[in-house]
Amino acid sequence: MVAETFVTPFWLDLAATGLGSVQGAMFAAQFKDRRLDLLGVGLIGMAAGFGGGIIRDLLLNQVPAALETNWYIPVAIVAALLGMLLERLFSRLNVAITILDAVSLGLFCAIGTSKALSLGLPVVPAVFVGIVAAVGGGMLRDILLGLPIGVMHVGSLYAVAAGAGAVFLVAAISSGSDITVAGVGCVIVTTLIRLLAVRFGWSLPEQRTI
Amino acid sequence: MVAETFVTPFWLDLAATGLGSVQGAMFAAQFKDRRLDLLGVGLIGMAAGFGGGIIRDLLLNQVPAALETNWYIPVAIVAALLGMLLERLFSRLNVAITILDAVSLGLFCAIGTSKALSLGLPVVPAVFVGIVAAVGGGMLRDILLGLPIGVMHVGSLYAVAAGAGAVFLVAAISSGSDITVAGVGCVIVTTLIRLLAVRFGWSLPEQRTI
Amino acid sequence: MVAETFVTPFWLDLAATGLGSVQGAMFAAQFKDRRLDLLGVGLIGMAAGFGGGIIRDLLLNQVPAALETNWYIPVAIVAALLGMLLERLFSRLNVAITILDAVSLGLFCAIGTSKALSLGLPVVPAVFVGIVAAVGGGMLRDILLGLPIGVMHVGSLYAVAAGAGAVFLVAAISSGSDITVAGVGCVIVTTLIRLLAVRFGWSLPEQRTI
Repeated sequence: MVAETFVTPFWLDLAATGLGSVQGAMFAAQFKDRRLDLLGVGLIGMAAGFGGGIIRDLLLNQVPAALETNWYIPVAIVAALLGMLLERLFSRLNVAITILDAVSLGLFCAIGTSKALSLGLPVVPAVFVGIVAAVGGGMLRDILLGLPIGVMHVGSLYAVAAGAGAVFLVAAISSGSDITVAGVGCVIVTTLIRLLAVRFGWSLPEQRTI
Repeated sequence: MVAETFVTPFWLDLAATGLGSVQGAMFAAQFKDRRLDLLGVGLIGMAAGFGGGIIRDLLLNQVPAALETNWYIPVAIVAALLGMLLERLFSRLNVAITILDAVSLGLFCAIGTSKALSLGLPVVPAVFVGIVAAVGGGMLRDILLGLPIGVMHVGSLYAVAAGAGAVFLVAAISSGSDITVAGVGCVIVTTLIRLLAVRFGWSLPEQRTI
Repeated sequence: MVAETFVTPFWLDLAATGLGSVQGAMFAAQFKDRRLDLLGVGLIGMAAGFGGGIIRDLLLNQVPAALETNWYIPVAIVAALLGMLLERLFSRLNVAITILDAVSLGLFCAIGTSKALSLGLPVVPAVFVGIVAAVGGGMLRDILLGLPIGVMHVGSLYAVAAGAGAVFLVAAISSGSDITVAGVGCVIVTTLIRLLAVRFGWSLPEQRTI
């Protein structure tokens, strides 16, 4: 099963990158004792903004899309510095940011899953690449900050939402859907599950033995 | 010197992946205070099961073999969940697991070294890639868990065993051996050194200055 | 804008790798409580010596240059073991090492930036790749040792110096300079800024909010 890549308007892609970067910088702002400098904030912004896309393209053996135009790097750096400076302002927009972040998660997932399919990967690895594209930026952020990796611990279904979206996309494509329909559906599924999980405090069970 | 890649039966490759994944999950089970969720356990399983192969293929500029079929990801996830649930049972099989793990180490090493040679790498980097393929999964596991990287610290010759196996394979190929003979020899050398090191407590000296 | 890659004499490239590796091992020698073994020291040496080049080539979707000849790996390992054994001797050469390290930083930056341009990357990502090539080895070293990543924290303009050198190289090429002139200029700019920052204690501001 080979699909086309789900193409989003360039401005939307940049907006999702910038949003990820703002959030990365806001997250890093909690750790004042670590004495991050402005460059460190910029690096966290880039990791959170387009790190998932870089991991996706490394796995797909492609030159990272974020390095093929001049736009992603300055957008991520400026967004990170704004996120740092205006952290108090953005904190008050918490609900809006959670919603936009859920949409970004879905976008990154739809792009990653469909790009993997378009390069000929089978469906299971394509879902895996979609999830990694969606949550990889946050994982890279946590590794760079030396923190436990959030997505691996009991939390609010971040990766599960992306996984459901990716499965939806693959199922839609294999039933003959157009890539635009499948991609938009993936974004909607991911966003909904993520927001419901935040709202109702859903989480996966913790590890345990029998 | 260009060799063919050492090809193992597909079931054996999957079995080695599953075993690595079971061990990754059992290892993670020690850290209950970290509140890994089921997804975190699955991620650790995938890292330990085929992470070394992914690093190998990134270094060789190939699409990771684990992403080219539908099999590796579900095998690693199911094995990790079994390793988590049945941790007490598996702990009692400690001797058997140590032996099978030593064989897996040798298999990953033989596949990695020979794949590097088959892609035209010189012998020293091929040995390096073989070692990384064998121990990279454990390194990735430790980075994801935020732990000191086991293979870099005083321990039981994990990487040294793989290095000896890789050197054996390269020497055998350059003396005209068939790849199957060289590969099986690599597995035997690696397994033996690893098991002797466990049995007799061999380790490398600690760092020090003159 | 496409440039040729800045080519340095092979011995100089190996010398810069060896120097990075010596420094990596000296740095690791501070952490005696972690019980690194000789292999761990060798790994840190390789990460610090050619880790930046490996990250550069992963981002550029090339087989890492350090794996295409037999030389880099033994040079990095021997240098790391010398750095470990002769740590007290090298510590007394601190000034000389800081100067040579600044030159290495410039070399890695010039090679990385020009290699990115030569593969057709736009100017902003080329500067990014040059900086990552220059500071990536140190980042990898810190991740392997489980330490905060030095380059992200308030310090002495390591990455900023590389960034200025990379911008100089791109500007020189786009004004029609020969690659050798642009590359040597990049090395001089990087070295000067880094040494002035060390001498006068320059650093970037710490993160803060308005």
